[in-house]
Amino acid sequence: MTSVISADHTSVAPSPATALRCRNCGATYPLIAVHACAECFGPLEVAYDEQVLAAVTREQIEAGPHNIWRYAPLLPVGQDPASRVTLDPGFTPLIRADRLAAELGITGGLWVKDDSANPTHSFKDRVVSVALTAAKGLGFEAVACASTGNLANSVAAHAARAGLLATVFVPSDLEPAKIVNSAVYAPRLVAVDGSYDDVNRLTSELGETDEFESTAFVNQNVRPYYAEGSKTLGYETAEQLGWRLPAQVVVPIASGSLLTKIDKAFTELVKAGLVDESPWAVFGAQSAGCSPVYTAFAAGQDVVQPVKPTGIAKSLNIGNPADGPYALDAVRRTGGAIESVTDDEIRDGIALLARTTGIFAETAGGVTVAVLKKLVESGQLDPAKETVVYNTGEGLKTLDAIADRVGPTHRIAPSLRGAREAGLIS
Amino acid sequence: MTSVISADHTSVAPSPATALRCRNCGATYPLIAVHACAECFGPLEVAYDEQVLAAVTREQIEAGPHNIWRYAPLLPVGQDPASRVTLDPGFTPLIRADRLAAELGITGGLWVKDDSANPTHSFKDRVVSVALTAAKGLGFEAVACASTGNLANSVAAHAARAGLLATVFVPSDLEPAKIVNSAVYAPRLVAVDGSYDDVNRLTSELGETDEFESTAFVNQNVRPYYAEGSKTLGYETAEQLGWRLPAQVVVPIASGSLLTKIDKAFTELVKAGLVDESPWAVFGAQSAGCSPVYTAFAAGQDVVQPVKPTGIAKSLNIGNPADGPYALDAVRRTGGAIESVTDDEIRDGIALLARTTGIFAETAGGVTVAVLKKLVESGQLDPAKETVVYNTGEGLKTLDAIADRVGPTHRIAPSLRGAREAGLIS
Repeated sequence: MTSVISADHTSVAPSPATALRCRNCGATYPLIAVHACAECFGPLEVAYDEQVLAAVTREQIEAGPHNIWRYAPLLPVGQDPASRVTLDPGFTPLIRADRLAAELGITGGLWVKDDSANPTHSFKDRVVSVALTAAKGLGFEAVACASTGNLANSVAAHAARAGLLATVFVPSDLEPAKIVNSAVYAPRLVAVDGSYDDVNRLTSELGETDEFESTAFVNQNVRPYYAEGSKTLGYETAEQLGWRLPAQVVVPIASGSLLTKIDKAFTELVKAGLVDESPWAVFGAQSAGCSPVYTAFAAGQDVVQPVKPTGIAKSLNIGNPADGPYALDAVRRTGGAIESVTDDEIRDGIALLARTTGIFAETAGGVTVAVLKKLVESGQLDPAKETVVYNTGEGLKTLDAIADRVGPTHRIAPSLRGAREAGLIS
Repeated sequence: MTSVISADHTSVAPSPATALRCRNCGATYPLIAVHACAECFGPLEVAYDEQVLAAVTREQIEAGPHNIWRYAPLLPVGQDPASRVTLDPGFTPLIRADRLAAELGITGGLWVKDDSANPTHSFKDRVVSVALTAAKGLGFEAVACASTGNLANSVAAHAARAGLLATVFVPSDLEPAKIVNSAVYAPRLVAVDGSYDDVNRLTSELGETDEFESTAFVNQNVRPYYAEGSKTLGYETAEQLGWRLPAQVVVPIASGSLLTKIDKAFTELVKAGLVDESPWAVFGAQSAGCSPVYTAFAAGQDVVQPVKPTGIAKSLNIGNPADGPYALDAVRRTGGAIESVTDDEIRDGIALLARTTGIFAETAGGVTVAVLKKLVESGQLDPAKETVVYNTGEGLKTLDAIADRVGPTHRIAPSLRGAREAGLIS
């Protein structure tokens, strides 16, 4: 392998990625824009040179920028800063949540990894930065995505920064905040009258048309690269804990990709010798309105039966989750569990997290916190072990979910008399 | 001065603050909870030991955390990490905005300092962290504020994290997002039927009552400490530029405090030898609906006449700005200017910033970008000089301002036929 010369004329390391490999049959492919195995239609994943990964050091990572690119030695693209198409997301806060732990009876230490701190306020900035950097390297001229909202926000913002043509496809019944937060960046914003699964099917078909031949669909033709971006959430968790793995993590499940990649990140860190080996259990969180992976887990099945999603956790409303079986596998292999919670429990989860930590999560975060509570109460999660819960998005994007539950505690005239009548003073 | 021993048993430096000093008459006071001069009613400001400041080094700061506390050697409180009441805001991105510069004809380099990246998505987290840390040190048991929205969000979130009783007072006609984003943290949230200036007057009166004797009002009795938090925006700008001052900055004006503190930060950095001396010009931005400082500037007056605010830039709607005269002074002394823009120009500013940078600003950011445009077009700002524009808040909090201007560009059925009818494919 030869080194690349970056824009600032310093030598940069080559990518550690060597191939795309089918997760089903193991067939390998070059590092091109393809996401399904030609042999068995299984999903492709980036494979790395394990010797190169093993040579990566903590010091090398710690000397990097305070964003996902500090982990470039463990990612398929972006080693050269000049090659990146990015809002520089990542290195979001890992927040010690002692007051939440006390309410839940968790004694082993509880942390919230708060990805609402990313540039467009969801974890999607991580995957989009990696996907668009790969897309640029592969020669694509335009970008697109199918999205439940956050991904569209992120793709549109990245494209605006870089000056790329973006076409984002979303279900037309999305939260208004997520529609506006894409539209403001002036992409082609296509509202589709259907579910996310309908939108996803449509963009798969559009990817085959002449008009979209030069378009990178971030979660389709460049999905193997895209998905690797999620690993950074796992890397950061370990580094921010002082280079060690947490005993338990609670992760929301939409497509299932995030959960599997956090698990993959922990595995890689151990293999690379960046953390000591220690057991970790991965727990999955779904909403009752869309819980196909939970259902399969509870029934002891390997196959995830598609469902028609309902409920307020729209960013998790993927009824036919591409990585569902792999999420199931990671949960079972590590001794975790999957739970689901109702819309009311989700609202309670948002409120509980906010009033004990100062973190305002979107519905997906409410799902995860409510599932954490349920896992503790049911004895599935060990309260004596250190636990990390992931908040993947921002409460301001799903305001309607709780707007009718919270509000002013007092309303007064602008006078001491008004304050007195409201009981604030006597 | 003696060193303090922090919770992790390392020795920490003492505060460089020596006194509170009246900005009008120069009378000094000990570092207590008082904000107006007993002699002349002028505003009090923190004074520092200039020898201590001069001993601060770049290396010392760079070795600190990636948040405002890296500047603890230049702040009145927070030297001991265990003393802080904080969400750890700051060190927000300084983003090179080449596409925006090209549209505006700015050739000298343009940067956006994006404070929507703070924990509660506005610059207020900076001042609240400093104010509440001071309040804790001064023995207060509860916190409160009068707010146009962002300050309430930040105080409520800080109090939730720390487990403090918070009472936040806001005008009852605030944007719904800002109401919910305070209420979710479960403070006492008092909606007052009046303007911000009415709310501010009321909280001044409440501060004198027995019920609020042990309450720190962040922008009243601990205001001198609070205001110092804004200096960190100036420090960061210089450090992120590679330890040098920008030639021009464009800053929104509400109370005027932020603008004066950025100017103060630049002055301190030069005095402390942390940057080379170079001229800078400070420009102020107001909305036409509330432009008392602009009006005084344009009329060549020193006195700011109070106004009754209107218009969509609610976070800037302070009709009687406490630091208006000092903002005027900073602008005139540095050779800057002040402009104001209409609600439509504000909306255009939000859209322009978003589609060229990927940054979604609240109305205050729209004001600042629109003023930047106006300053360039009118020849008041030199397009050949390096310029930094400050985005102080998050677009998701003022969604209604642009919700009727942006939206889907296409709406289709979930099929290739639908895509064809919309002209996306042929």
